[in-house]
Amino acid sequence: MKQQICILGSTGSIGTQALDVISQHPDLYEAYALTANHRWKELAEQARRFNPAAVVIADETYYEPLKQELADMPDVKVYAGSKALEDIVESPSIDMVLTAMVGYSGLAPTIHAIKAKKKICLANKETLVVAGELILQLAQQYHVPILPVDSEHSAIFQSLVGEDANEIEKILLTCSGGPFRTFTHEQLKHVTAADALKHPTWDMGAKITIDSASLMNKGFEVIEAKWLFGVPADKIQVLVHPQSIVHSAVQFCDGGVKAQLGVPDMRLPIQYAFSFPQRLPLRGDRLDFFRQPLEFFEPDVEKFKCLAMAYEAINKGGNMPCIVNAANEIVNEGFRKDACSFLAMGDIIEKTMQAVAFDSNPDYDVYVQTDAEARRVALEIMNNK
Amino acid sequence: MKQQICILGSTGSIGTQALDVISQHPDLYEAYALTANHRWKELAEQARRFNPAAVVIADETYYEPLKQELADMPDVKVYAGSKALEDIVESPSIDMVLTAMVGYSGLAPTIHAIKAKKKICLANKETLVVAGELILQLAQQYHVPILPVDSEHSAIFQSLVGEDANEIEKILLTCSGGPFRTFTHEQLKHVTAADALKHPTWDMGAKITIDSASLMNKGFEVIEAKWLFGVPADKIQVLVHPQSIVHSAVQFCDGGVKAQLGVPDMRLPIQYAFSFPQRLPLRGDRLDFFRQPLEFFEPDVEKFKCLAMAYEAINKGGNMPCIVNAANEIVNEGFRKDACSFLAMGDIIEKTMQAVAFDSNPDYDVYVQTDAEARRVALEIMNNK
Repeated sequence: MKQQICILGSTGSIGTQALDVISQHPDLYEAYALTANHRWKELAEQARRFNPAAVVIADETYYEPLKQELADMPDVKVYAGSKALEDIVESPSIDMVLTAMVGYSGLAPTIHAIKAKKKICLANKETLVVAGELILQLAQQYHVPILPVDSEHSAIFQSLVGEDANEIEKILLTCSGGPFRTFTHEQLKHVTAADALKHPTWDMGAKITIDSASLMNKGFEVIEAKWLFGVPADKIQVLVHPQSIVHSAVQFCDGGVKAQLGVPDMRLPIQYAFSFPQRLPLRGDRLDFFRQPLEFFEPDVEKFKCLAMAYEAINKGGNMPCIVNAANEIVNEGFRKDACSFLAMGDIIEKTMQAVAFDSNPDYDVYVQTDAEARRVALEIMNNK
Repeated sequence: MKQQICILGSTGSIGTQALDVISQHPDLYEAYALTANHRWKELAEQARRFNPAAVVIADETYYEPLKQELADMPDVKVYAGSKALEDIVESPSIDMVLTAMVGYSGLAPTIHAIKAKKKICLANKETLVVAGELILQLAQQYHVPILPVDSEHSAIFQSLVGEDANEIEKILLTCSGGPFRTFTHEQLKHVTAADALKHPTWDMGAKITIDSASLMNKGFEVIEAKWLFGVPADKIQVLVHPQSIVHSAVQFCDGGVKAQLGVPDMRLPIQYAFSFPQRLPLRGDRLDFFRQPLEFFEPDVEKFKCLAMAYEAINKGGNMPCIVNAANEIVNEGFRKDACSFLAMGDIIEKTMQAVAFDSNPDYDVYVQTDAEARRVALEIMNNK
């Protein structure tokens, strides 16, 4: 029996690489449902190639052209809208859901998938950043495994395999440092989104590339790691590692460190999430240990304030990470559209954290309200600057 | 119930560190029997500290002084001779045997321990080099686990935990490169044992320190890895890694690499062999990722001929690794006593390999004969040089 996979966000970087993994193992995996936000043409092309049972375009504006484009493929059902996303993950045929959407939008469909008892391959880290406690509690309640797809969290997960009862002394979360790693504060004043989008190592979408440049992405990963591995933030250390070869590591109570290494290729963690605990052959480059020395540095949280804000949000808990995430989505887009400077991003997030009402014990509705309020506040601060 | 441990070679580097591990966990482990080759004074001191049920001095010359030294401790039985070593490992109270003797002498007691169904913590790599096929077959027959204690093999073993059915693409065996790593051929002509004994990283005995300088130790480890992990030699790659931080790694069929890292501290692999699959707390230094970049180089088998000889011996199989081991014990001692030069070691081993009768399917008696014959031949070649 082939495993039926639903890819939320199939036209993005993770989504297309997931489809490559599926095409390398046609005997094991099948794309049952593909979804995209607005890229309807790419979605139609993917539907032609992978012949899924259904496609969903989140932005309803593109329903008609997509429907028409696929008129000659009556077996592919076409849906539109965010409600359709929540419905599609519940399809009885689906075995696992890869959550590769961008930002906060991944939360609601992920919750629906968990409640429908689908195995979650989690690429949308914002889901855990915003509502980690809720998601973990639901996963436990519905006996649903959550497999990390982020390369760092997959590396930690891989390092923990077979170490069941062994005490974690420290998680070592590696970080490329982004394109501005060696910049001075003065230089950082003048960097643009275009500069950031020349990211050195990984091929990623625009939003996460900016988050990587500001180190907010790493801050989110600290929050994600806290929830996935049940380790407090003060035991999660960020290591700047410009070569991006050591994908992350775990230090145990005996001082022994286990790490997962490899070339930067997201197909490996995607495939590992699909096939865990088995590893499947994967065509692709292999690591060349001789190419370059591996370096590690401490992150500079003075220069990269977003990382400090993320740690502060974890320590505060409650809806604070949700506030940081919402504010970050605003400033991230603002930076890409030249509405705010690189260094202003951290400042606006900090001010938003101070301005929005704190709730130490939020439920789902509080998260929704917090998200909306924090966006409003962050936007206001950004526009008044 | 405390686990009762027999340490073969308790006064050596591994033995004393094993006793430190035992003293860190007095609630879990007890030294039941301690043995030494000739260092009877140290053995007596250890007996006072750890109060074992028995001590064995292999060199019978030292039986009387040892016996007298321990006259006031009637609970500690004192034995002498190589037969006593074979007997002591069979004591019903013993749960596991740490084989930390030097060289070929570890073979017979290890076989006795396996036949007595004792868990083997294997620090004596020559046992597997000489008779890997026999040892593995016995371990299977008597359902005895063999836990590696060499830091490299422990690292590989740790990297394989939980990866049960997953295909190994390559084993990456790291190697400090020894003190002569950067020397030219001309410089190697003039190095002495004293130069080699200033080994950069690990605190080890004299024999293994010379083997590390000649890379014969790494060659033996390739043979050891072949037997322990069932991987052919052409899938075992030696990586020179002067920092000795990555203790070794495994590359799987998906290209993912898992590694174990740490400070150079043999107590970790010793303790892990004792406590596997559990990890116990271990006091000691922790890895500092920021101290130095991690470098990797290909080994130079032109300059370090012993490594090439070891690969050749594995490919030949049969009693060839036994020949190499015996010849190496002769030249290693010869080099330490100024009876042969550094570069002559590889040449003498090569000539011994050509001179001693090859047996493709040796049994235990053939190993014993081969060992004696190869020592005789190597000594003759060395003395006629």
